[in-house]
Amino acid sequence: MENFIYDTPTRVYFGKGQEKKVGEIIAEYGPKKVLIHYGGGSAVRSGLIGLVEECLKAQGIAYVLLGGVQPNPEIKMVRRGIQLCLDEGVDFILAVGGGSVMDSAKAIANGAANPDVDVWDFNMGKAQPKKTLPKGCILMLAAAGSEMSNSCVITDEEQGEKRGYGSPMNRMNFAIENPELTYTVDAYQTACGAVDIAMHTMERYFCPGEDTYLTDALAEAVMKCTIKAGADCIKNPTDYAARANMMWASSLAHNGLTQCGRQFQLVVHQLEHELSGMDPKIAHGAGLAALWCSWARYVYQANIQRFLQWSNHVWNVDVDYEHPEKTILKAIDLQEEYYRAIGMPTSLRELGVGEESLEMLSDRCSRGKTRTLIGYKPLAYEDILAIYRMAL
Amino acid sequence: MENFIYDTPTRVYFGKGQEKKVGEIIAEYGPKKVLIHYGGGSAVRSGLIGLVEECLKAQGIAYVLLGGVQPNPEIKMVRRGIQLCLDEGVDFILAVGGGSVMDSAKAIANGAANPDVDVWDFNMGKAQPKKTLPKGCILMLAAAGSEMSNSCVITDEEQGEKRGYGSPMNRMNFAIENPELTYTVDAYQTACGAVDIAMHTMERYFCPGEDTYLTDALAEAVMKCTIKAGADCIKNPTDYAARANMMWASSLAHNGLTQCGRQFQLVVHQLEHELSGMDPKIAHGAGLAALWCSWARYVYQANIQRFLQWSNHVWNVDVDYEHPEKTILKAIDLQEEYYRAIGMPTSLRELGVGEESLEMLSDRCSRGKTRTLIGYKPLAYEDILAIYRMAL
Repeated sequence: MENFIYDTPTRVYFGKGQEKKVGEIIAEYGPKKVLIHYGGGSAVRSGLIGLVEECLKAQGIAYVLLGGVQPNPEIKMVRRGIQLCLDEGVDFILAVGGGSVMDSAKAIANGAANPDVDVWDFNMGKAQPKKTLPKGCILMLAAAGSEMSNSCVITDEEQGEKRGYGSPMNRMNFAIENPELTYTVDAYQTACGAVDIAMHTMERYFCPGEDTYLTDALAEAVMKCTIKAGADCIKNPTDYAARANMMWASSLAHNGLTQCGRQFQLVVHQLEHELSGMDPKIAHGAGLAALWCSWARYVYQANIQRFLQWSNHVWNVDVDYEHPEKTILKAIDLQEEYYRAIGMPTSLRELGVGEESLEMLSDRCSRGKTRTLIGYKPLAYEDILAIYRMAL
Repeated sequence: MENFIYDTPTRVYFGKGQEKKVGEIIAEYGPKKVLIHYGGGSAVRSGLIGLVEECLKAQGIAYVLLGGVQPNPEIKMVRRGIQLCLDEGVDFILAVGGGSVMDSAKAIANGAANPDVDVWDFNMGKAQPKKTLPKGCILMLAAAGSEMSNSCVITDEEQGEKRGYGSPMNRMNFAIENPELTYTVDAYQTACGAVDIAMHTMERYFCPGEDTYLTDALAEAVMKCTIKAGADCIKNPTDYAARANMMWASSLAHNGLTQCGRQFQLVVHQLEHELSGMDPKIAHGAGLAALWCSWARYVYQANIQRFLQWSNHVWNVDVDYEHPEKTILKAIDLQEEYYRAIGMPTSLRELGVGEESLEMLSDRCSRGKTRTLIGYKPLAYEDILAIYRMAL
């Protein structure tokens, strides 16, 4: 087991009606002015933004609004938000939405607190934020796990680049999680969420590490419960138990719990970021589903034992010790069938990505053939290209 | 699933050599003077207290020492610590030891920050601390989970009363967890720790609650891994993987993770506190082992389904749907065999407790017949007495 630091300071208010506490909760931070940051019209139409405004007014807290965050949030919007904060004296950021809004809010908080640094440098790994503004969120989508994660992923659409980075500055101070607020999320977005949630933990599970059987068992619990919750949410969008277990899985899958004692990199996420960085219409979860099984078939031989454990513990496949590869390939097939059953793609063509883009994507993902992704089988440019080809 | 607040702000530094960072870590809080609080001679003899002193000196941080905390920490020591803090201007508390030292440190931090309140009133539920001093710990024993919990249990030996209370003020700011520091813990104390760790989560698991399948799966993971890790630690006290998984389980079993969405009370803990409150020579973990199986046999019929799930998921007993009671009683027997196998008592007589004490213990545990413990089968005075009798 490797040494680790476990640091999950985000206070979660979970359950029905919790969003009504937002005024009291933010008042604890004594802010001068709050930026309410959100995405499309649904936050407004549902009445949630109106409720937040009422709650802040009731506490005598001033605020400004900034809506319009797009999926795969853009650096342009982040720059606009930072300027607004500086102009208006904003000292607290509230994200109302899903992962895109939360990541945009994190980037704004880091940019506004470090106005002498170009905020894109944080995403490009050229600088690390030393301070940030306090921030919280009201979750409208169970997917990204950004509500408890230390991650912030932003896209520069002009360059076609999508880049994430980890920092303690990226932790939300609080997260309000009411599963009922996700009842109206459609089947496709719900499925994308189920893929992304499980993937955050599945990727950690397949990072190198030894003797982490407690972490392993927790990870297997998160993966299995997300498989069930995702399917149940699609079957019945107002199934509170399903929405609640999925939302809580979203937070635990990506807050660090399931990586303790293991190496860490979200490898298939790196492969996917190039897809949705190139074409922002590609939903992140769909891109992950299109890639994962090809990744698994490409790398599994590097650690048969690990993939056997996963096959047995997560997919309940009986282990065939004489032909362990059969066991593993069967479990990967089950994973693929699950993706199809919840309406997810399992190939790049379904996302409109063709052979002509693969070398460019591989070049970007390997940072011009300079970066190798970690894993039981490390992945350099040629490996990345091979996986994209298998996924076609 | 019930609404909940999840709040685990303790930053954990886990792994080999982490205790050497203690000076740098405490320096972040900019304290004027630190109280180094510890128990018996082993913290000194092992060189750990000396190392802490060196680390603080290297950072130019002043400190005072207070050792001598006993198992089942006493209110007398807490009062002494508070006076020392007030006299010396201490504004940071460092606990070096196990649960007793950590709980004593928490009580001192709360008492010193609220000098106008009698500190025992917090434990008696007559007052709640509104503020506290920042505090951290270096763990020398994996058992109590106090390093991440919101709990603080103190004994008034003169009155024979042992009382715990939960408060956000009881959370450590940081915990340093180096599994190697527990290599010298003897087999009996290691077994007591394994019982206590699993019990923190097992008690949560049997509190009322519905539709918490993610929480359930995480709890089952913690219970199963603790069963394995505890036995492995006793087999080989310097098995790093076993000590590490056990130590990490200690923190997760009691930080709130395994209760999300369920009601909460540590019922068998309440029964046990009367034993070690009456006789401080009784180790808490041993008292729990002596009681749990009798509690389970007394209450299981109130929720057959829940006990069946536990029997199957934790002890891998095949479910006999025609005779579900057989399945459950078999799993309880396996739990009992496990306790015996690691050298724990499974009856009160083994702890020197006889029939003559049972009415007094029941009266105390029911707070003079005014308190009913929660559960699928709520427990009033007569139930408590019946369980003590079954455990004789």
